[in-house]
Order: sequence, then C-alpha cells, then structure tokens
Amino acid sequence: MTLTHLNARGEAHMVDVADKPESRREARARGRIRMQPATLALLAEGGLPKGDVLATARIAGIQAAKRTHELIPLCHALALSKVTLDFELDSAQNCVWVEAFCRLNGRTGVEMEALTAVSVACLTLYDMCKAVDKAMIIDGVQLEEKRGGRSGDFSRQA
Amino acid sequence: MTLTHLNARGEAHMVDVADKPESRREARARGRIRMQPATLALLAEGGLPKGDVLATARIAGIQAAKRTHELIPLCHALALSKVTLDFELDSAQNCVWVEAFCRLNGRTGVEMEALTAVSVACLTLYDMCKAVDKAMIIDGVQLEEKRGGRSGDFSRQA
Amino acid sequence: MTLTHLNARGEAHMVDVADKPESRREARARGRIRMQPATLALLAEGGLPKGDVLATARIAGIQAAKRTHELIPLCHALALSKVTLDFELDSAQNCVWVEAFCRLNGRTGVEMEALTAVSVACLTLYDMCKAVDKAMIIDGVQLEEKRGGRSGDFSRQA
Amino acid sequence: MTLTHLNARGEAHMVDVADKPESRREARARGRIRMQPATLALLAEGGLPKGDVLATARIAGIQAAKRTHELIPLCHALALSKVTLDFELDSAQNCVWVEAFCRLNGRTGVEMEALTAVSVACLTLYDMCKAVDKAMIIDGVQLEEKRGGRSGDFSRQA
Amino acid sequence: MTLTHLNARGEAHMVDVADKPESRREARARGRIRMQPATLALLAEGGLPKGDVLATARIAGIQAAKRTHELIPLCHALALSKVTLDFELDSAQNCVWVEAFCRLNGRTGVEMEALTAVSVACLTLYDMCKAVDKAMIIDGVQLEEKRGGRSGDFSRQA
Amino acid sequence: MTLTHLNARGEAHMVDVADKPESRREARARGRIRMQPATLALLAEGGLPKGDVLATARIAGIQAAKRTHELIPLCHALALSKVTLDFELDSAQNCVWVEAFCRLNGRTGVEMEALTAVSVACLTLYDMCKAVDKAMIIDGVQLEEKRGGRSGDFSRQA
Repeated sequence: MTLTHLNARGEAHMVDVADKPESRREARARGRIRMQPATLALLAEGGLPKGDVLATARIAGIQAAKRTHELIPLCHALALSKVTLDFELDSAQNCVWVEAFCRLNGRTGVEMEALTAVSVACLTLYDMCKAVDKAMIIDGVQLEEKRGGRSGDFSRQA
Repeated sequence: MTLTHLNARGEAHMVDVADKPESRREARARGRIRMQPATLALLAEGGLPKGDVLATARIAGIQAAKRTHELIPLCHALALSKVTLDFELDSAQNCVWVEAFCRLNGRTGVEMEALTAVSVACLTLYDMCKAVDKAMIIDGVQLEEKRGGRSGDFSRQA
Repeated sequence: MTLTHLNARGEAHMVDVADKPESRREARARGRIRMQPATLALLAEGGLPKGDVLATARIAGIQAAKRTHELIPLCHALALSKVTLDFELDSAQNCVWVEAFCRLNGRTGVEMEALTAVSVACLTLYDMCKAVDKAMIIDGVQLEEKRGGRSGDFSRQA
Repeated sequence: MTLTHLNARGEAHMVDVADKPESRREARARGRIRMQPATLALLAEGGLPKGDVLATARIAGIQAAKRTHELIPLCHALALSKVTLDFELDSAQNCVWVEAFCRLNGRTGVEMEALTAVSVACLTLYDMCKAVDKAMIIDGVQLEEKRGGRSGDFSRQA
Repeated sequence: MTLTHLNARGEAHMVDVADKPESRREARARGRIRMQPATLALLAEGGLPKGDVLATARIAGIQAAKRTHELIPLCHALALSKVTLDFELDSAQNCVWVEAFCRLNGRTGVEMEALTAVSVACLTLYDMCKAVDKAMIIDGVQLEEKRGGRSGDFSRQA
Repeated sequence: MTLTHLNARGEAHMVDVADKPESRREARARGRIRMQPATLALLAEGGLPKGDVLATARIAGIQAAKRTHELIPLCHALALSKVTLDFELDSAQNCVWVEAFCRLNGRTGVEMEALTAVSVACLTLYDMCKAVDKAMIIDGVQLEEKRGGRSGDFSRQA
C-alpha cells in the first residue's frame, strides 16, 4: 500500500494518467455546516434573502470545482462536463447539508472536484452567516459515491 | 439580527469597510481529517514521504489563504502579513489535526482566510491519501479564536 | 494630451502611483443587455428562477471587480472596500440594466473595476439566456460618475 | 422555452455536456468602443504607440477568452484551439471596432469565449485611453456568427 | 522562416491547432540557480529544512506548469497528464539543478510547460534563500528534449 | 544564518511582516534570452512584428509581476505601484536583454516581483520564437538593485 502521489524517494509528483482510457467518471460528495437554531432560522425565512445566500454558495461551489487543480497541488486540470450543488436546511439537526455531484469524460476521477465544491460552498455559508454566528462548524465532508475509472466504484456504507 | 452580506432586498453585496480603521486582526482555525489507522500509519512512517505529504498540504493551505477572496464571493481582497499551518498526527483518534493562523493589518477580519487554509490543507491530505483510503472524513473545521476588529474578540468555549 | 499608459517610446507600462496620497475613490458604471421581449419575460417571471439568474450575474460581477487587475493588463491590484451590483428589468426598452458601484481607500481610481463588473454581469446574463436568444446585445457600458483622486470628479451629462 | 442553466427549482447548475459528441465549434463576436474624435486620433497616430495600445488590448482579449470559465460562473472549462482579435479604427463613426474569433474541437459552443474576448479588449482600450476621455462607451457587443453543435448555426441578420 | 504567433500584419494571435491530431507529447527542460557555497550548504544540511525548501519549490513548479497558459499569453490551455520536478544540489558548481518533465495526450507541445516549471521552481528557491544571499543567479533555463508532434523530436546537443 | 521562510522545525511558513513599517521599496532585475543570430534578426526586422513580439512579452511580464504571490508560495500579496519592462536586442551577444523595475509602498521587498517579471517575459519570448529556434537559453536572471526595507540596499557588483 503506497501513496501514489509520492515517488520512491518520497517526493511529490503529478502522476501520469496518459495511458488511462477516457471514460465517464462521476463523484458525489456531502458535508454540512452546523449552526445555532437562530442562524438557521435566518436562512429558512421565506423570501429572497434565502435565495441569494444559497445561490451565492452554489455559485462559489461550482466555480471552486472548476478550479480544483489550482487549489490542490497534485490534481490534474480537467474539463468537468457537469457540476451541481444541492442544499438542504435541516432544522432537526441545526445544519445545512451540502451535496455536490461532478461528471467528466476523462482520464482521472472527480472526487476532489466534488469534495472541493462542498468545502467551498460550506465556507461561503460560513462567510454569509458569520456576523451572527462565529461558532459554526463544517463537518462530515466526505465522498458518498464514485463511479468509473480503473480503481472501481465506491459507495459509502451507511 | 441580520445577515450583513445581504441588502434590504435580500441581494448579495460586498459590504463597505472603507470607514473601518486599519488594525491588527488575527484568526486561528482548526479542523481534522479522519482516516483508517493504516492510512495514518503511512503518513507517520519516518523519512521523507511524510515530509512531502505535509509540506504539500501546508503549501496548499498557505496559497489558498492568499486566494480566499477569489473563492468566497463576498470576501474582500486583503494582504495577509502572516500565514502558518501546523499539522498533528493523532493516532489515538486516527486523524490529522490541521491548524491555521492568519494575521493582517487591515480593515477586515481574517477568519475566512484561516478557515479556508484549513479546508484546503485537509482536501490536499485527502488527495494525497485517497488511493489507499477513499472513506476519509474532513471534520470539525471551525474558528478557534479571533482578535481585533469592531466585532470584538472570539474564543471558542471548550 | 497623451496616453498615460505608454512611455515616450510608445511602450506600455504600469504607471507609478506611489506618490499619490491614499484617498477615497468611488465609481459608478452602467450598461445593459437588450433581448427579445420573450426572453425578458422569462427573467421577469416571478419565483426563484429570476432570483438565481440575477444572483448569479451579481456574484459574477462582484468577483470580476476583484479580479480587474488580472484582466486589464495595466490596472493596479487594489483592495476594494465595497462592491454592489443592481439590476433593473425594463420591459419598455426590452433590456436589463446593470449598475455597479465600487469604493476604495487607495491611490488609484476604481472606474475600471466598476466597468468590468458591469461587463461581466452582462456576459453572465447572456450566458444564462443564450439557449433561448442568441441575438442579445450588450450596450451602453459606460462610466456614470467618479469621485476622488487627482483628476477630479466626473459626472456623465444626461 | 426554458433557461437551460436553471433546474426545475430555478437553481443554477452547470449543464451536462458529457453526452454531446466532440465537434468543431466556432464563434465570431463583435463590439466597439466609441470615443471623442481627438481620442481616436491619438490611437490613429502612426508609429509604435498605436502598436502597443492595440497589442495590449489584443493580448488582454486572448487571455480573457482562455479564462472565460473563471469569469462566467456556469461556463465549462475548455481548451480553445484558436483565438484571434482584430481591431479597426473607424474615424467616420468615431470608434474602434473589435472582432474576436474562437475555435474549439469539443462539446460546448464558444460564443461566450468570443464575447468575453471582445468585452475585455474594449475594457482594455478604455483603460489605456481613460486619462484623456472618460466618456467612452462600449457598445454593440454581440454574437455575429456561430457554427457547429446541436443547436445549429447562427448568423446575425444585417 | 516566420514567427508562427504573428499573422501577416505582425499581430499576435493564438495559432489554430484544431486540425492537429491528438498525440503523445513530452518535454524535458533544465535550469539551475547559482549561489554562494554557504547558501548551498544551508540547503544541503540534513534533516527536514531541506525537505521543505525543495518540496516547496517542487510544488510551485508543478502548479506553474498547470497555469502556463495563464502566464504565457499565446499558449493554449491543456491538460497535462504528468509533471515531475527533480532537484540536484551540486556543490562542485555551487548551484541547484532543476529538471522538469511534462507529458500530454493532446494537440500542442509541452515545451513551455516544462520551461515554466523550471523557471518558477528556481524563482521559489531564490525566494526561500534570499534572506541570506541576494546575488543568486538563475541560469541555463533550456529545453533538453522534446518528443511528439508535427515539428518532430528535439534533443539538445551536448 | 538561517532561512527565514522555515520555522525551527524546518517547516515552510509565510513570515510575519505586520510589524514592519510601510516604506518605499524598489527592485530592478535583469535577464536575457540567447538565440541564433537568424532568430534575433527576425525580431530585429523593422515594422510591426517586432512591436507585437516585444509588446506581448512586456504585457506578460507586467501581469506576472502582479501575480507573483500566486506563483511563489511564500510571497505576500502586495499592491505594486509601478512596473516597467525594457528590452534590448543585442546583436553582438545574440540575445535579448530584459530588465524589469518594480516599486511599492509597503511592508515587503519587491525583488521577487521584478525577477518574476523578467522570467515570464523571457519565457514569452521563447514561446514566440520557438517555431524557428528551440535551442534558446534563458540566462543570467538576477537582481541588479534593491532599495528600501530593513535589510538595506543591494547593488550588484559589476
């Protein structure tokens, strides 16, 4: 078992994917940001404010997915064919759930893109709400499912 | 209690900080990535591999802190005077702890910069280890402490 | 009368602003995107769709304002203290009006930032609507008002 | 007739292009910046100054075309195979015409890339000339022609 | 013999590669940074410091290779399949040698990516050491070898 | 004598400049690209081609100076007040000399910005000429002079 991003001398490198065939890759990631009930209530209030908060986080997540290779040093640049982000306000657990889905026809998986989209969307929600609640916590950012590629499919056990 | 990043019509905007005085701002944020004991053991092995894994995550976090305003749509561009990242391998809890500290002489707080550095460092660790462990979870990304600025200091309760 | 961005040999350079005092600079720019009445009606329909279209264009404009110095080769990097974008759906003239306002405490004007925000917001509206209307026209992108700085104030004549 | 960049709930997303075949896509866009006759005369003066002004705007437009997906939130990253920009000084209409042409072998159209190149080239001309003329207007930024892709060809009616 | 990046009027443009077939392209570039013996000795000291200096330069070089098309105006965006950087401390010649290797399945060569990686890695070494030695010189940045593509292979003569 | 960008454990960090006073900083760097006489002759030919080649390299260098903190991991973001690049075609030594000058009112030196501008301008010249000469060499990239800041002035000995 070895870390593929290191060579035999332990030095970081960008691994070669030239010999991998192009195929459809998909990944779905999730995470959440926990907050005070009063903070969540501000987001849950009907009307436009909610629209712009979630829309802003959604756009931030989509754009971050596209720039993953700039943020994560050893990620390959790739041309995502699809990115979506979904939000769910959960007043039982006092959090906003964030789910991202990415798809690619290409030579590398898109797990990092989905995880990056979730992380940056959560950070954006933190930024939009931090004036009223600095104690929010970003939690449970994880890969839920991955399809395609040589390493096979992955599906998180419940 | 209102969300400062929205105007009265609920539309997103970048809030004015022109009238705030320049002062020293500091923020410290933490988070962790949980993994299989075997994955952590790979990181903990002596020698250079560990060096390059943590060094890569550290550089990624520092660079992300500098680009926070590109990632988080309503953040102001600012000129951080200091960024540090620290990592702690915790074999009791099977995780790597990541802590970031940012400082600025300026008109806005640097909480988002510290949280962004932690998030991107965790994502980079995920990327470096994902060939051996896709089930890792980024957890507990949170502000620990903040000093300076009109909104006063913040220190997380234990 | 000379072009300040060229030296005596006609070569481009980034002009020196080191000796200018820091002062408050403001700029307001406008523009519009003209479209078919049916396209405008799609935007004007009540409900969330409108919210996300305008919210997306607003975020794009704000982010572009912050990156003006990357887009316009001879612009100085600067730390905007405020950016706002406003949209007005005009069914009489079959267009969406876009107005941007930028503010800075600094050594250079922020006209380019306001004009860039308007242009990129209009381009984003084009992108969101192009599946139904490829003939839209971005028109009248212009500086409306500018305050502060050695070159004095500017206010467009009606 | 619907806006393809919104899902059924009106939320923005990056539409899937994975099932589109790769094909040759081309787009040609135009726009102009109107100015005082004296401003245009400065650009039209023989010699190098003109060269550097137009060369700077050309480079800015080419680079912006390559970064369109960073500026326009829902645009796909793509690898343009060709970008050209042409300028025409028009002393009858007191303006500089800007035309951009983009080509791609890929799964999405390149209209946004051509329009972005025109817009940023015009903004760069504004920046280079604003010391002598702040009232310039960017006008008529529009798609002239598009070829390839499922939605068919487009050619603007005279 | 003409410069392919200029058209018949001498204007810069991004040349068309749409008709080139996709093929494997590789390039290897080298360069070095010369320094005082005492500076080199600091880098050569055993232990982690050396690790982090070289690891930082390596990450900087890899990331720069991915962003070459943003830095070099007429370069095409492309999706490198592999990037590696190697460093050699040479106490005989008082320098650090930097070698970069890039690979792509695509329509353009990757010489610029390899040369950019070397240059930015050298600049990063300068930055890390400049507190003790401002007189360092970056030297001999050159293409060593190139394979694939219509223009044929290149191998530098010893 | 220690490397300031490493802490006591040899880990990279961005050093604190918050306590440094703002002052005027200047740096001048030089470098050159050596080429075949025939290649240089192509650049030296009268007319516009030369204009666009050098103009393109100049713009690339200026833009790179502004983005130095994105390229060099431990550099601080800063707001350059002035950037100029000069080129000299030297048919005696068969090279193009590139000189960059940067100025800042701030808390850090601008050596890295000047060196980065020179490097990227040289890389751009390589790119523009590589179709006719792949053996060009970028040489002698070095700091010529530096003024301001706690570490004092530097002037290279002839």
